[in-house]
Amino acid sequence: MTSVGVLGATGAVGQRFIQLLDGHPDFDLSVLTASPASAGERYRDAAKWRLDTPIPDDVADITVRDTDPDAIPDDTDLLFSALPSDVGERVEPALCEAGFVVSSNSSNARVADDVPLVIPEVNADHLELIDVQREERGWDGALVKNPNCSTITMVPTLTALTQFGLERVHVSTLQAVSGAGYSGVTSMEILDNVVPHIGGEEAKMETESRKLLGEFTGDGVSWLDATVSASCNRVPTLDGHLENVFVETSEDVTPEDVAGAFEDAPTLDLPSAPDPLVEVFEEPDRPQPRLDRMLGDGMAVAAGGIQETDTGIQYNCLAHNTIRGAAGASLLNGELLARDGWL
Amino acid sequence: MTSVGVLGATGAVGQRFIQLLDGHPDFDLSVLTASPASAGERYRDAAKWRLDTPIPDDVADITVRDTDPDAIPDDTDLLFSALPSDVGERVEPALCEAGFVVSSNSSNARVADDVPLVIPEVNADHLELIDVQREERGWDGALVKNPNCSTITMVPTLTALTQFGLERVHVSTLQAVSGAGYSGVTSMEILDNVVPHIGGEEAKMETESRKLLGEFTGDGVSWLDATVSASCNRVPTLDGHLENVFVETSEDVTPEDVAGAFEDAPTLDLPSAPDPLVEVFEEPDRPQPRLDRMLGDGMAVAAGGIQETDTGIQYNCLAHNTIRGAAGASLLNGELLARDGWL
Amino acid sequence: MTSVGVLGATGAVGQRFIQLLDGHPDFDLSVLTASPASAGERYRDAAKWRLDTPIPDDVADITVRDTDPDAIPDDTDLLFSALPSDVGERVEPALCEAGFVVSSNSSNARVADDVPLVIPEVNADHLELIDVQREERGWDGALVKNPNCSTITMVPTLTALTQFGLERVHVSTLQAVSGAGYSGVTSMEILDNVVPHIGGEEAKMETESRKLLGEFTGDGVSWLDATVSASCNRVPTLDGHLENVFVETSEDVTPEDVAGAFEDAPTLDLPSAPDPLVEVFEEPDRPQPRLDRMLGDGMAVAAGGIQETDTGIQYNCLAHNTIRGAAGASLLNGELLARDGWL
Amino acid sequence: MTSVGVLGATGAVGQRFIQLLDGHPDFDLSVLTASPASAGERYRDAAKWRLDTPIPDDVADITVRDTDPDAIPDDTDLLFSALPSDVGERVEPALCEAGFVVSSNSSNARVADDVPLVIPEVNADHLELIDVQREERGWDGALVKNPNCSTITMVPTLTALTQFGLERVHVSTLQAVSGAGYSGVTSMEILDNVVPHIGGEEAKMETESRKLLGEFTGDGVSWLDATVSASCNRVPTLDGHLENVFVETSEDVTPEDVAGAFEDAPTLDLPSAPDPLVEVFEEPDRPQPRLDRMLGDGMAVAAGGIQETDTGIQYNCLAHNTIRGAAGASLLNGELLARDGWL
Repeated sequence: MTSVGVLGATGAVGQRFIQLLDGHPDFDLSVLTASPASAGERYRDAAKWRLDTPIPDDVADITVRDTDPDAIPDDTDLLFSALPSDVGERVEPALCEAGFVVSSNSSNARVADDVPLVIPEVNADHLELIDVQREERGWDGALVKNPNCSTITMVPTLTALTQFGLERVHVSTLQAVSGAGYSGVTSMEILDNVVPHIGGEEAKMETESRKLLGEFTGDGVSWLDATVSASCNRVPTLDGHLENVFVETSEDVTPEDVAGAFEDAPTLDLPSAPDPLVEVFEEPDRPQPRLDRMLGDGMAVAAGGIQETDTGIQYNCLAHNTIRGAAGASLLNGELLARDGWL
Repeated sequence: MTSVGVLGATGAVGQRFIQLLDGHPDFDLSVLTASPASAGERYRDAAKWRLDTPIPDDVADITVRDTDPDAIPDDTDLLFSALPSDVGERVEPALCEAGFVVSSNSSNARVADDVPLVIPEVNADHLELIDVQREERGWDGALVKNPNCSTITMVPTLTALTQFGLERVHVSTLQAVSGAGYSGVTSMEILDNVVPHIGGEEAKMETESRKLLGEFTGDGVSWLDATVSASCNRVPTLDGHLENVFVETSEDVTPEDVAGAFEDAPTLDLPSAPDPLVEVFEEPDRPQPRLDRMLGDGMAVAAGGIQETDTGIQYNCLAHNTIRGAAGASLLNGELLARDGWL
Repeated sequence: MTSVGVLGATGAVGQRFIQLLDGHPDFDLSVLTASPASAGERYRDAAKWRLDTPIPDDVADITVRDTDPDAIPDDTDLLFSALPSDVGERVEPALCEAGFVVSSNSSNARVADDVPLVIPEVNADHLELIDVQREERGWDGALVKNPNCSTITMVPTLTALTQFGLERVHVSTLQAVSGAGYSGVTSMEILDNVVPHIGGEEAKMETESRKLLGEFTGDGVSWLDATVSASCNRVPTLDGHLENVFVETSEDVTPEDVAGAFEDAPTLDLPSAPDPLVEVFEEPDRPQPRLDRMLGDGMAVAAGGIQETDTGIQYNCLAHNTIRGAAGASLLNGELLARDGWL
Repeated sequence: MTSVGVLGATGAVGQRFIQLLDGHPDFDLSVLTASPASAGERYRDAAKWRLDTPIPDDVADITVRDTDPDAIPDDTDLLFSALPSDVGERVEPALCEAGFVVSSNSSNARVADDVPLVIPEVNADHLELIDVQREERGWDGALVKNPNCSTITMVPTLTALTQFGLERVHVSTLQAVSGAGYSGVTSMEILDNVVPHIGGEEAKMETESRKLLGEFTGDGVSWLDATVSASCNRVPTLDGHLENVFVETSEDVTPEDVAGAFEDAPTLDLPSAPDPLVEVFEEPDRPQPRLDRMLGDGMAVAAGGIQETDTGIQYNCLAHNTIRGAAGASLLNGELLARDGWL
């Protein structure tokens, strides 16, 4: 078994990591960290648990550690990071320098030149950037990132369309409140309402997707030359980001081509990888967040509403933002790191 | 005073007509029609009133008539139609033939060649199609339509951009449940959910907007030569359609140009016309449905989030779907018909 | 295996029956009925499936039958009824006369003198009323009912309190929209709102609970002599009825007595019976519908907020209204019928 | 004009005060206070305004002052307090000592012996406690409180029932999220959910209602000798607390008696006092928060669902929690203070 830990284990994403790691075939969770205020407490006392499955018994009694390299046992093979980005920015490099491999969901450093930003089914080969990273930074460990939840929802479908010459993407998102963390959206803001702005989100979708779809050149990533414009909205759903995508490709494509490309999207033989990666609906009113977010145990992407427009194709896609879009994304990256011998 | 009536007065849009006509300076409401089952009842008994202001006292005791030309007094100057489209398709022409002028919110005949589809601030001159209509159909009356609620939300902003050479529009809508009528969306469908499909809505936005933005040629309307692609979503809000718009223009424009064009949108001196027509927000998280749908007593359009993209401009717009987008739209058309001497 | 069927299989409760019977250790589902319009279709075509798990493969291809004694194979051991009450009132007696045993969730006949109204953990012995029923009606089959969803939520807790001399109950309910069926509550009614009235519900809670808590006397049920007053509200939750209960008992009881009585509530060794029956929370803000409705796979009752008042005890209880409160209730009655040899 | 100020003017209740004072016939708003961090800023910059009407122009430019006796002009006749209770506990006595009259919505000191807790239509005579207060505390100013929002919703109906010998009250509340302040309830807590606990709320309802319904004895208030038990729930509505009330009286009363008593509830000739005080609905599904919270401009109480139980009467009542239940309550107390010559 691979010995793993969760950094920032008491927050919303941290709790998801613990839920998803429960019963994992290869990973053994033994290390939990949080802010100094919680260090020394048992997890059951430190966390205000909010998921609808109980805290796993063997996790509840783990003593929470400080989020500090010195507090983490040297033999921990892999650390999952659910740290706030300002903490991640400070602590993650220190951990990598101390020799730990970190699979991180934090938003810091995602577009740094020598940091692999990875969705395993999309760009597993970008992991090789770790060699560049280690050389440049002198690290024994490694830092690997997954993209933002709204980016992850869309990119598995876009990657299937690159064969047609992807040139232009307009995307509107309808994002669930859980994406902002437990206290991120107040009820007064969102009941009977929609908020057409999520700070920084549009830029993340525009840059991260082009890096993900880029080519590893041996010493870096050459970003995809395409335009991506995003308009991000918060809606009153709990989980599941739905996105309306308009694409233009250099080749003419039909809705059938697109559906076929989605259905043929490659899958991986990793414990948390869904099969199929993209589930295509024929019913025009699907996918819907509440009905479809748990497809593939929350790791699949759903697509539907594929239609021709005057200038290209439009379709809708959906993924579970705190599973495929956050904790599950880092977990899958961890499984890829293990398979490819980086631990 | 102009004597007016409401066709289909017991439904959701019918109720809004009654609410908006209460205290109107020029229009005197004296005729209410409904299905034969309700004919002969007092309005207070025939309607299950659902608005948060009470039924106006003088309306409550009006006896409901059958929706039939023979049942409507000849001296009724103007009829507002909130009929279901299948009923409207049958009854509205019969009323026009009988000499009545009908300002209709029903979706039938909106894109017919000789039927004016009008937003007064956008294309008041299209009313002249009535002459063509009367000649072709041999009517004494006239039939005038307002567009669909999702179209109305967007077109007052698009018309301000035609000066820059509007070429391409991608729009995603986040539409309130009231747009589907009182029973159109069940709670099981929409709580903790979003439905990425509204039957026929996307086609309506694509065709109606091009007709509205077209040019009256003397004997018809030459539709705007631009591509419009829409993706329509139902979200759990009560009132107020929010729309994310991506536009491309032949001229280069800046966000400041766009904001200026919105602010300069012309207004009309009609009782229900808002001033300004388009309210522009600088805060990036506005407009929001719950906070901004009642601007201009529900008749204004709100816009915000204006930004450059790699290929054009994106922005958000919002209007109250059952006021500016339905009953208020027909009412304003009625006011225009009165001003221009068509009654 | 016991051969079972579902009457009214295409509706919301019918779908839950199918979901719960999937993989059942003792029951083999082979018969599905619906209205004549659907008879002859495959189930996958006849039903608009709305649950978040897919239709079981072996069920999807079953041909739907008419809800008629002649259309149902004689060797069907047990029928679960999800019929609308007006249909149930007509068809269920005919089925019983034809020799079928019917475990019904329909509201008709629940308080009839010779019809057992049963919650297995509460009054399993009431099944013996079947002998009375068969004698009086000359049936070979039998009709057994489960109570209304709001009654089921409360009665497992009340039965634990009868040892203290239960005299008076005031209950306020906060009921989920799914209790009204898929189209029962429109979104316009319930978004940003609460409806303090559910037709007939208060009377059901008052009568059904007293019958359930009554004593089987050999030839009938002597209802519990206590007063039960209910105030029923619909709230914007999807599943899970929460109830505030105020009770007065002839003996003095402490919150600890009450918690102990709940925890000691007997459980049954039936496939769908939860253990414990009543889960008691110490946190004052639990149970909550979204977090706790799936306890015991949706078959447990959750309780919390136990406090003394000046005149007795107050507490909150919660159950999943379409599992423990509907399909699961009938299923558990079916398991009891099988165990006790009534099939 | 009476010169007034608002303490804690930037928060949710403070904003309501400003909205309600806009255009007030007798009160001229000139003083706004907030925490030291905001002191010195213009109100438009200091407050994140969240109401759906704009900041009144003449208020937007007022310079915010520190919440300190020295910072408030001596000639301010009346101060409305929207302070957090811990701040109110410290600052309000200092202001009274400095000679200011404070009409406060803060929860501190509500049940203190010499502090009038007042709903003008219920117990205006309790204002005479001010004489006791001034004597005991040596104040020139005065401190008057209004009760908690959930208490205010119920007490105007209970006071109408005291003529029948009110003995026992059980109440369940369905309270809107705005009662917890703008950030008090997160969306993750309340979407598709209900929380059956509001810290301290049940005790407030039980004590405050008995003080309000008590008798002024010349040197204090003799609380009503009745039992009041409350069960408080947070539901996903924005504004408007709905309450299910079960009462027992020493005299036999019919639903007609109760409806009559509600309709006969006395009203006051004050600018913000509604007429009628209690609006009685015959429709069993009313009042509903979204439809009825704005009755009497948000200052009326709505009642309905009046029925006999085996032991008394049950009914539902509703009021707007941030108008009648908070800012409007203090404002009405201020109007009473002015009328009775206490300023």
